Amino acid sequence: MRRTSRDIRTANRYGVLRQIIARSPVSRQDLAAATGLSLATVATLVGELLALGLLTEVGFEESAGGRPRGLVGVDAGGATLVGVDVAETRVHVELFDLALNVLDRADEELRPGESAPEEVADHIARAVRAVTGRTRDGGQEAAAVPGSPGPPGAPERSGRGDGRPVLGAGVSVPGQVDREGGVSVHAPRWDWHDVPLLRLLSERLPDHPLHLDNPLRACTVAELWSGAARGHGDAVVVSLGTGVGAGLALGGALHRGATDSAGAWGHTTLALDGRPCHCGNRGCVETYVGAPGIVRHLRDLAPGSPLFRPGDQSATLAALARAARDGDPVALAVIRETARFLGAGIADLVHLVNPEIIVVSGWVARLLGEELLTAVREVVARRAPARPLAGTEIVLSTIPTNPVALGAATFALERHLSDAGAAAAAERRRGGARPAATPRAPRP
Amino acid sequence: MRRTSRDIRTANRYGVLRQIIARSPVSRQDLAAATGLSLATVATLVGELLALGLLTEVGFEESAGGRPRGLVGVDAGGATLVGVDVAETRVHVELFDLALNVLDRADEELRPGESAPEEVADHIARAVRAVTGRTRDGGQEAAAVPGSPGPPGAPERSGRGDGRPVLGAGVSVPGQVDREGGVSVHAPRWDWHDVPLLRLLSERLPDHPLHLDNPLRACTVAELWSGAARGHGDAVVVSLGTGVGAGLALGGALHRGATDSAGAWGHTTLALDGRPCHCGNRGCVETYVGAPGIVRHLRDLAPGSPLFRPGDQSATLAALARAARDGDPVALAVIRETARFLGAGIADLVHLVNPEIIVVSGWVARLLGEELLTAVREVVARRAPARPLAGTEIVLSTIPTNPVALGAATFALERHLSDAGAAAAAERRRGGARPAATPRAPRP
Ligand SMILES: [Zn+2]
Ligand SMILES: [Zn+2]
Repeated sequence: MRRTSRDIRTANRYGVLRQIIARSPVSRQDLAAATGLSLATVATLVGELLALGLLTEVGFEESAGGRPRGLVGVDAGGATLVGVDVAETRVHVELFDLALNVLDRADEELRPGESAPEEVADHIARAVRAVTGRTRDGGQEAAAVPGSPGPPGAPERSGRGDGRPVLGAGVSVPGQVDREGGVSVHAPRWDWHDVPLLRLLSERLPDHPLHLDNPLRACTVAELWSGAARGHGDAVVVSLGTGVGAGLALGGALHRGATDSAGAWGHTTLALDGRPCHCGNRGCVETYVGAPGIVRHLRDLAPGSPLFRPGDQSATLAALARAARDGDPVALAVIRETARFLGAGIADLVHLVNPEIIVVSGWVARLLGEELLTAVREVVARRAPARPLAGTEIVLSTIPTNPVALGAATFALERHLSDAGAAAAAERRRGGARPAATPRAPRP
Repeated sequence: MRRTSRDIRTANRYGVLRQIIARSPVSRQDLAAATGLSLATVATLVGELLALGLLTEVGFEESAGGRPRGLVGVDAGGATLVGVDVAETRVHVELFDLALNVLDRADEELRPGESAPEEVADHIARAVRAVTGRTRDGGQEAAAVPGSPGPPGAPERSGRGDGRPVLGAGVSVPGQVDREGGVSVHAPRWDWHDVPLLRLLSERLPDHPLHLDNPLRACTVAELWSGAARGHGDAVVVSLGTGVGAGLALGGALHRGATDSAGAWGHTTLALDGRPCHCGNRGCVETYVGAPGIVRHLRDLAPGSPLFRPGDQSATLAALARAARDGDPVALAVIRETARFLGAGIADLVHLVNPEIIVVSGWVARLLGEELLTAVREVVARRAPARPLAGTEIVLSTIPTNPVALGAATFALERHLSDAGAAAAAERRRGGARPAATPRAPRP
């Protein structure tokens, strides 16, 4: 969509907070240098973030020949954020401080057959309450807050771990998601069509704002705020798992597309009339570089290989990764064959998008690691011309924790910042001289 | 690259001027509605454009129950712009008014063997002088301006057609271009490597600012300012000629990428291990949907077809287009085969970029027209899922003139606006209350 001056103000607020998270504590002068914004703009944005309670003043540093410079840092002891990664067989929830450090985790298993929207929503709500209803050192429950008793029958927990307010919770669910409407448009694994998941969750978790999105976009914003894409203008985040996608982070922001469906790289065609894909087409990227595609390379190259773990795709890939690291020729051949397709697909992204960096993430990338990346870089170097390629780094994700939960929490943080920006703009229109804190400001 | 608040001010200036060109004459109120900007922002930007001499006040319209609204329009009788399309066998130059209407044209033939950079630069300079040195009704030459005599030996023309100042000239050359450095990095047809074309042209045309870029990007900005992409947030301009590309116009601006090479869609892989491509890879999109690829479909399907015009690819395609319109089964089969590949490639763009509109342009698209587009839309509808596709229109370019020359002139206009913005910002920093006209302002 068209960008407005409010978009750019929100984007600047994101950019400044990203740099503060990366460099905390930091002076306004260093932030101006890191973001390319003027000192006056940085000072205004820092003032807004201080008023929102996201930052604190943390002292002074001496500056050469000048007066001491004030330092600001993220208020890591202040509010919290929740990130939810709903996968096919379990719900994983993490609680974050405002510097996006993990404070707590909880899991709920989804048993086979437990696929009714209400059942999944119950599991999500229980896992979220588990992290928001206990302190950082575990166990102790916060007192219930009057007026927010939670759904009938649920344990009386407050939605405020350790008395610290929760700014919001982001929830990632697989498949097609209508973010604005809070609807799971299609989740093939559970045969969901147009499930109003956000409404089901709001009934169960009425205490804080909730946001719905999908794993690909969550991984992409996680890299943008906390990973290898931070500070880069144009980045592509290639996500390799059972499914495959490529999130586009252009001009420092997620590119969503006209119907919020950009990034479906897994179903772009790499070999017209090639392997059949579950989407109905043939030769999609995903059929060659997704986990089932890699297992098929193994089957094609070494049908009776002892690396197979029948019925367990991730164990097979783990065995493959170990064998490749030990120099096993079959495992190395499978990695070369995977890299032949993945390198061609990544070269296509270099040709079309010409990004500064391509970050390869997802559990398959984490398993196969540098063995796969080294082979991919060689293929890309053979296929892409020198000029675009010279501008593009290809790296593994360096996020050590669950990137989907991190990204989901990041969406909650972004939404808080953008709502706060809208409130500040409304305040300015009403004649207030300075942007003020929003109704959701975390100051108690 | 990261966007700054100056970028957004420049983008807003572009957006407002685009709408004025489309709607001239128009009120500030209607501009605010069309651009989504506030009336105050529109009034400021219109003030800047008036000060730059790009607009004029053209009267008033009655408004329901209010005071009459002032109307502004492009100052079509004011300054001019030059667009240069350097193709393989000829240089085509057009002179435009500020509403991007063509005022005049000139051509220079490039004879086989005439490929030395100085020779090509001479032809370009001669064709530019032909349109800037005569009036709209042809023939009459403007008086030479003292101090700008042109290069030695050249006819004494002023660079100011009809006494109207030339704001700038944009030059499109095929191949890889380093826009900032003004260098043709690689032009395969002439075997050019790192030719400093802008310097050669500045020596010959010292009177106005010159800008270098390539045909794909020129076509893309032409669609964005004057074609089907205008007013759309995210658009892709697919260009079909001997070569093939896909310009990305995202958020209302051209996406250039890290090394200014985004859009090389012609060399993304559609059929791994497929037809060999001149880039050294196999199965590139271009080998199936570029002009030589389409001729090859004809040869594969009907080796002895009377549609062949030996040695003349464009005559063959013209014959093919006529035959298809007459229902010739061979021609229709060639179009279906082309659409099978082009539809798969366009479906890939829908998957990855999810644009609001895909504009198909270039001389091959102009020849094959709706026959090709109808077949392509059917293939895309079979391949892309309903959700992203529902958001994407696929249309033929509606630009009736040479889009490359138009786009090249548009680059000159954009550069003038962005230089003017930088000058206005410097003025504000020096304490001037209002943005002032730049040294290049077209007022005599
Ligand atoms: Zn597919
Ligand atoms: Zn190629």
